[in-house]
Amino acid sequence: MIPVASRYVLKRSLFGFDINKKGTPQGTVKVPESLGIVVGLVFLVLAILFQYFNFTADSNWLVEYNAALASICFMILLGFVDDVLDVPWRVKLLLPSIAALPLLMAYAGHTTIIIPKPLVSYVGQEVLDLGCFLSYSDINLTLMKAYSLKVLEFGSPSQQAVYLCKELTDSFVVAGWMYKLYMGLLAVFCTNSINIHAGLNGLEVGQTVVIASAILIHNIMQIGASSDTEYKQAHAFSIYLVQPLLATSLALLSYNWYPSSVFVGDTYTYFAGMTMAVVGILGHYSETLLIFFLPQVLNFLLSVPQLFGFVKCPRHRLPRYNPETGLLTGTRDGTLVNFYLRIFGPKSEKSLCIHLLLVQALGCCFCFMLRYFLAGWDKLPSVLTSMG
Amino acid sequence: MIPVASRYVLKRSLFGFDINKKGTPQGTVKVPESLGIVVGLVFLVLAILFQYFNFTADSNWLVEYNAALASICFMILLGFVDDVLDVPWRVKLLLPSIAALPLLMAYAGHTTIIIPKPLVSYVGQEVLDLGCFLSYSDINLTLMKAYSLKVLEFGSPSQQAVYLCKELTDSFVVAGWMYKLYMGLLAVFCTNSINIHAGLNGLEVGQTVVIASAILIHNIMQIGASSDTEYKQAHAFSIYLVQPLLATSLALLSYNWYPSSVFVGDTYTYFAGMTMAVVGILGHYSETLLIFFLPQVLNFLLSVPQLFGFVKCPRHRLPRYNPETGLLTGTRDGTLVNFYLRIFGPKSEKSLCIHLLLVQALGCCFCFMLRYFLAGWDKLPSVLTSMG
Repeated sequence: MIPVASRYVLKRSLFGFDINKKGTPQGTVKVPESLGIVVGLVFLVLAILFQYFNFTADSNWLVEYNAALASICFMILLGFVDDVLDVPWRVKLLLPSIAALPLLMAYAGHTTIIIPKPLVSYVGQEVLDLGCFLSYSDINLTLMKAYSLKVLEFGSPSQQAVYLCKELTDSFVVAGWMYKLYMGLLAVFCTNSINIHAGLNGLEVGQTVVIASAILIHNIMQIGASSDTEYKQAHAFSIYLVQPLLATSLALLSYNWYPSSVFVGDTYTYFAGMTMAVVGILGHYSETLLIFFLPQVLNFLLSVPQLFGFVKCPRHRLPRYNPETGLLTGTRDGTLVNFYLRIFGPKSEKSLCIHLLLVQALGCCFCFMLRYFLAGWDKLPSVLTSMG
Repeated sequence: MIPVASRYVLKRSLFGFDINKKGTPQGTVKVPESLGIVVGLVFLVLAILFQYFNFTADSNWLVEYNAALASICFMILLGFVDDVLDVPWRVKLLLPSIAALPLLMAYAGHTTIIIPKPLVSYVGQEVLDLGCFLSYSDINLTLMKAYSLKVLEFGSPSQQAVYLCKELTDSFVVAGWMYKLYMGLLAVFCTNSINIHAGLNGLEVGQTVVIASAILIHNIMQIGASSDTEYKQAHAFSIYLVQPLLATSLALLSYNWYPSSVFVGDTYTYFAGMTMAVVGILGHYSETLLIFFLPQVLNFLLSVPQLFGFVKCPRHRLPRYNPETGLLTGTRDGTLVNFYLRIFGPKSEKSLCIHLLLVQALGCCFCFMLRYFLAGWDKLPSVLTSMG
């Protein structure tokens, strides 16, 4: 459908010129824009039909699945509106938080954040205190529901809560509204961080393919390692949404890879970011997701001075293209792309993209190692169920 | 937000000329198109936030509500894509059935169709037989679930089914897939029928305002008349979605009323049609809804020869405008607008629109009378609960 839709978007003058090829004949070709709308629509149809095979009519996952669909659909809509109408920058930042509303409304799961053991001593106690400040018995119930523990039959609710939190040394509970705020911010971060780690042919889709693959591997590993049904279902849920994301992204990548014959538009970056945020949240592994997003976090940190207006921010923050050598050179703009070029020297667009995708993949491997060695999270579920 | 968005759509050359004012200075003004996107987005945000006030976290309506949101959002997305990319006519017809998918997937309610008593002897038996052909015990269960009856403790499942259907003389049950097909077709009809009953300033939004008001009155009447909780909840559910539709439509009407300063686009007609189809289906009063759509049904029947290609179909099937008198004259094109003009003589655009909206309102009054005198449906719920 991508070549067919390309003709329609060109007719509507939705196109862009490839800035990194300025000065060559390729730089004058009108490249159709916003082809993310095609894969977004295909994704939605697939994800909707998947329900028939993946859930029974009385599954208690159906509310969250439909809310996830509504959020992703809303994000695609807002992304496409943005591509077509070119909304102002400050409105743009708001869009993902609006699209995340159905998800925040429907979320009824636990509000536990698991943090690595070495950090517990620094962070745990304060947030725990804040949590306890609101309601001990709520936290107690949430904790027990989250880990399917039996009701504790001793002490006051506050004593029980403290006992439980001590038992589960590397997890703590935050109040519902705090967790929802965190979810909203995660959605805003995931969508925008993919949107600003861009500017090379194939980079937006490529990073999505790498992260989505990592998510898929993570899900499968967790399903294999755990014996807790609820925990398995959360990861199966995530697979139902990541699988079509990966499949449709690969289709788009084949057209968006260097030299791009189509551009993906904000429609795609928003759609991909929101889908991954949704699966991270509903699959209860948002902390792991953030480590998969390590290069995006780095890119965001490098961008902070320009994004928040401390330094002047040009419309495009791209490297400089030399039409004679065909190589890109890093500029002073704060992006990972420029940073990488300044450290490792000028590169062609294609090899730079491959390098950055490899960095992304290395980040994901680092995350898997981190999970295994540092946090020991893999052992957590079995410990908890044996407690229950 | 409508005036602000108007500037953005004009910048993207999303505009139309007012054909019914051709030959006057007003006919040369670029009127911004697709402003339905603004009210659609506002509707979605409102409908999402309404959940917080209208449902508890464990409500079993949440799946259907989120599926409804996903369907409406998907329809707005496809409508906007259609407005921007101008998809071919045969694809256009398919769009509502794609957008209705989340709804069809999530629908887990009963599959009873209530038909007026005088028609039962003609229709009832055949469809009942068809239903029984699939599974007696399914129907039995569905019927009992639908009307909260106790389990019958005599005879075989088939005898029970026949007994139940005879007891409830004016309702019959169809198999799940048949009902879902009916739901899909209803969504296709509602969206397209509003889309083709158009061409006058304010007509698309005006008819929606009239029908939505009728739906709201119907819901309130039914909640007042019934003592069945489930039945009341279905109508309350409908109110939660129709209320923001009516409110946002009134805002759009103030800009779209004669002389229009904005056009609504397929985005709006699809959005309005889908929302009304959704509430009709999930509120379990789709038959009543179809009577509210009487002028649209008539317009559809008049259009059939042109829509299905028996007669040549021009791009616009509008009446002829006389710049000297300022009046519209009916043409031979098969639409209700032309038909009305041919019968009642030439009219100005504004008074023609008012006439057609009055016809719509009369149709709704007719529906209320029909319900009251012919079918006697108002007494049904109380009879059934007393049986239970």
